[in-house]
Amino acid sequence: MAAVAGSASAGANGSAAAHRVGAPTNPMATALLTDQYQFSMAYAYWKAGKHADRAVFDLYFRKNPFGGEFTVFAGLEECIKFIANFKFTEDDILFLQSVMPMCEDAFFDYLRKTDCSDVEVYSIPEGSVVFPKVPLMRVEGPVAVVQLLETPFVNLINYASLVTTNAARHRHVAGKSKVLLEFGLRRAQGPDGAISASKYCFMGGFDATSNVLAGNLFGIPLRGTHSHAYVSSYMSLDEIPDKSLKSKDGSRVCKDFVSLVKEWLQKIQLADSLCGVFGETNQSELAAFASYALAFPTNFLALVDTYDVMRSGIPNFCAVALALHDLGYKASGIRLDSGDLAYLSIEARKVFRTLEKEFNVPAFGKMIITASNDLNEETIDALNKQGHEVDSFGIGTYLVTCYSQAALGCVFKLVEINSRPRIKLSEDVAKVSIPCKKRCFRLYGKEGYPLVDIMMRESEPSPKAGERILCRHPFLESKRAYVVPQHVEELLQCYWPGTSNKPRVELPSLEEIRGRCMQQLEKLRPDHIRRLNPTPYKVSVSAKLYEFIHSLWLNEAPVGELQ
Amino acid sequence: MAAVAGSASAGANGSAAAHRVGAPTNPMATALLTDQYQFSMAYAYWKAGKHADRAVFDLYFRKNPFGGEFTVFAGLEECIKFIANFKFTEDDILFLQSVMPMCEDAFFDYLRKTDCSDVEVYSIPEGSVVFPKVPLMRVEGPVAVVQLLETPFVNLINYASLVTTNAARHRHVAGKSKVLLEFGLRRAQGPDGAISASKYCFMGGFDATSNVLAGNLFGIPLRGTHSHAYVSSYMSLDEIPDKSLKSKDGSRVCKDFVSLVKEWLQKIQLADSLCGVFGETNQSELAAFASYALAFPTNFLALVDTYDVMRSGIPNFCAVALALHDLGYKASGIRLDSGDLAYLSIEARKVFRTLEKEFNVPAFGKMIITASNDLNEETIDALNKQGHEVDSFGIGTYLVTCYSQAALGCVFKLVEINSRPRIKLSEDVAKVSIPCKKRCFRLYGKEGYPLVDIMMRESEPSPKAGERILCRHPFLESKRAYVVPQHVEELLQCYWPGTSNKPRVELPSLEEIRGRCMQQLEKLRPDHIRRLNPTPYKVSVSAKLYEFIHSLWLNEAPVGELQ
Repeated sequence: MAAVAGSASAGANGSAAAHRVGAPTNPMATALLTDQYQFSMAYAYWKAGKHADRAVFDLYFRKNPFGGEFTVFAGLEECIKFIANFKFTEDDILFLQSVMPMCEDAFFDYLRKTDCSDVEVYSIPEGSVVFPKVPLMRVEGPVAVVQLLETPFVNLINYASLVTTNAARHRHVAGKSKVLLEFGLRRAQGPDGAISASKYCFMGGFDATSNVLAGNLFGIPLRGTHSHAYVSSYMSLDEIPDKSLKSKDGSRVCKDFVSLVKEWLQKIQLADSLCGVFGETNQSELAAFASYALAFPTNFLALVDTYDVMRSGIPNFCAVALALHDLGYKASGIRLDSGDLAYLSIEARKVFRTLEKEFNVPAFGKMIITASNDLNEETIDALNKQGHEVDSFGIGTYLVTCYSQAALGCVFKLVEINSRPRIKLSEDVAKVSIPCKKRCFRLYGKEGYPLVDIMMRESEPSPKAGERILCRHPFLESKRAYVVPQHVEELLQCYWPGTSNKPRVELPSLEEIRGRCMQQLEKLRPDHIRRLNPTPYKVSVSAKLYEFIHSLWLNEAPVGELQ
Repeated sequence: MAAVAGSASAGANGSAAAHRVGAPTNPMATALLTDQYQFSMAYAYWKAGKHADRAVFDLYFRKNPFGGEFTVFAGLEECIKFIANFKFTEDDILFLQSVMPMCEDAFFDYLRKTDCSDVEVYSIPEGSVVFPKVPLMRVEGPVAVVQLLETPFVNLINYASLVTTNAARHRHVAGKSKVLLEFGLRRAQGPDGAISASKYCFMGGFDATSNVLAGNLFGIPLRGTHSHAYVSSYMSLDEIPDKSLKSKDGSRVCKDFVSLVKEWLQKIQLADSLCGVFGETNQSELAAFASYALAFPTNFLALVDTYDVMRSGIPNFCAVALALHDLGYKASGIRLDSGDLAYLSIEARKVFRTLEKEFNVPAFGKMIITASNDLNEETIDALNKQGHEVDSFGIGTYLVTCYSQAALGCVFKLVEINSRPRIKLSEDVAKVSIPCKKRCFRLYGKEGYPLVDIMMRESEPSPKAGERILCRHPFLESKRAYVVPQHVEELLQCYWPGTSNKPRVELPSLEEIRGRCMQQLEKLRPDHIRRLNPTPYKVSVSAKLYEFIHSLWLNEAPVGELQ
């Protein structure tokens, strides 16, 4: 006991300290963020003198989310930060003693000295495209310590990977040219659900967020316009006390911007090319738009559906935008938050184009149209099929809560202890774990696409480019194929070497992870990504590992009796 | 401008400070936790000199979640903590300046001095049963400040109310006598999603959580047993170095508990009453159970489905439990985490009862059976219909992620500004807001059940017990009813008086809120709560408010033109 505790303690001043990688983003990600039974097990291991047994756990999932055939792996950085800071405070210990009064004092002394200096973490790089059964992470270390990491790791990976995948799916359906804005803070599951969502949606391919704190924490670009409340807070144009606006180049001052707006509104209403489609508009709305433009002349973007998009919002917006144009400014565009987005965006675009011609205002027809009403993969897909003129989608609820599937089922399974392989059997074959410490490779074909992932025993030689290798389905005997890879990529890399001397991969920046995610999705064969009936990507084991799994299985499984 | 900024500043040293109610549970709930457009609007208000206009916003939702007809309101305490701590740090200001470079410096000076000392918050007590359209909270104050509160308030209320309601629904279907355990930390949406889930599931009627940090933060009882990994970490009984166990009363020491377990296993296998149903059991499992019992002799609870529940898990568990019994201990019970829970629980119960008789072990038949495999409202309902012997349900994913409906749609709408009522119209009647500052009452009938909620204009006299009052549907002319309430309860109470002199309701403890929730659900007419086709609870407005809404509506709505 003493020796183990001693070595952990030395580690705290040694390797763990040397690997400080910053605090977890969420201040609640402390060593107490775990399930009570992890502590019970740690105590039982300790009591049986097994706590330092060297265990290997695999973290993986069994099924891709959202009916798809790919997943984006995310959350690694938070896991590494978690273990870098893993330590029990004296307050933590006092609390644990109060809820586990049956445990011996020496156990708490052991916890006091526990950190993750003797733990090794191997992981697929964050932002990679990943598939079921292949370990996303392999965690090795004293069984009692690694057991305590199970819950926080699974928590930190599950939602991160789920929402990144959801964002990537939204990006895929929207297409590369559209601007995607994450508007989920109101509907996310708590403050941190929102912060995580903003981070991982950006990772998965979004361009910006409305969440100011996420912008602050991660440097994600911020976007947003006003809400309906701003519009309804105005009654009339008289409420604007200072009506003057300096021109963009600073050369002149328009003393009454409101009158200029009114003039433009009249011109629009009388414009021949619009055949008088616009009648009376709502004056509160006009006042709100005019005052908003006075505050933001350089990037005026208006929410146009408070009263009636085509009869009030669009003409009011155009009047303000044209008045701004007179002063050298270029309005940004509009946001639609209700109604038939396909129809309204097309009609709005027509008006913008007509006014561009009628009043010779260059680029007026290219004004940005943002849509934002309960959007998700399906509605964007439906909009694409109908045809629309939306340039930018603001997506909230469905994106950040992962409404269509609110959880990913990552698990953390013991695969080896003291160098002896362990298998978790189940009557459901999909739930049988793949035993022993493994290496995992992605094999690429001629066209540059990944063909198959293969898991092998640690002792086996790596697959080599140009050399034929047999890839077997882990459980179905008849499913196997020879592959001659053009290129071989080892998937699990060392992110936390513990007391080993392995070189450690540095954590990349959020931008780099985002780049990796985009690039990996582009490299994938399109039929794995498509929304309808995507092709499953193949995950295999080597011939040796196949034999090994099945001999172990026979050995462990009880022999039934037919009665 | 100066006067306003000054008064806010004075407030910071005055009433806000006097109302310190502790920091938000989530350290991320800072003043930056809001949408970017709230700051844009704040600037536009400030620029137009409107920032101090006195605004009244209602926070409410439009539809009960989960296909039900009730919602439990939660999250108030976090909102009050949020405004008590609402202040921009110099770092916040620097960040805001960097992302809003177009804004004048004086605006940031205004933000520097901004706090919530001039804001008033009226709210329904946390843990109350609530219904669509009725304001859960009314927030009054300078429009620019209250606007900044919109996003965090909606964020803090949405998920809290959703998951509390989900927990209450699970409690309802499980029945009062069952123990409900929240096991959601692994699958929750981030660390804070998990902490919030634990808090609000307890509020909604759960008995305990597995989440240690939530136990630490909120004093929620902790529960849990070991996982499959603990079982598969053992190979054989030889791995238990110290096999001795002192009897419960301390009078004697059993030197070889493992042998005692083996003896019991043999007795069970040979027991006449069991007709030799048990053959060979898994020895790793037996070793894991024995070692776990040595660590936790006073509350031994085993997960029995790692290999085969009836052929291995149950006999192994019983052998250990009976050995413990020899030494004066009483085992707690088992957990089933896979398979047919109804069947397995019934079979396990039969074995426990048989052994109680066969070996004369009092209460052995009453051992706790916990079930925990992907449970939700539907599966518990199905178990009830089939019949089962489960005493305790451990519920995770479906509970904490609110899988069947991952978001509640709370909104925050401007209803009055500078004493002038505002209405938000929409082509969808369900989205029309109910204007002006209101008082809300719950009217109770003879049998003690709530009959109807009624919203009234602030100037109207309160409804009185025994006096007839007309309750009208807010939008449908023909739907109205006279009610003679036996008891009248005012719903909105003052939780943050701002600079008003209104008495402030203290925040109750979590236990008190939980008690309120349980009590309110019991007081509700059962047909509002039932799972299948529940009856909608009636929400109404007074005759005066009805007239007022509709005159305002006609006034604001554009008159269409048929072409």
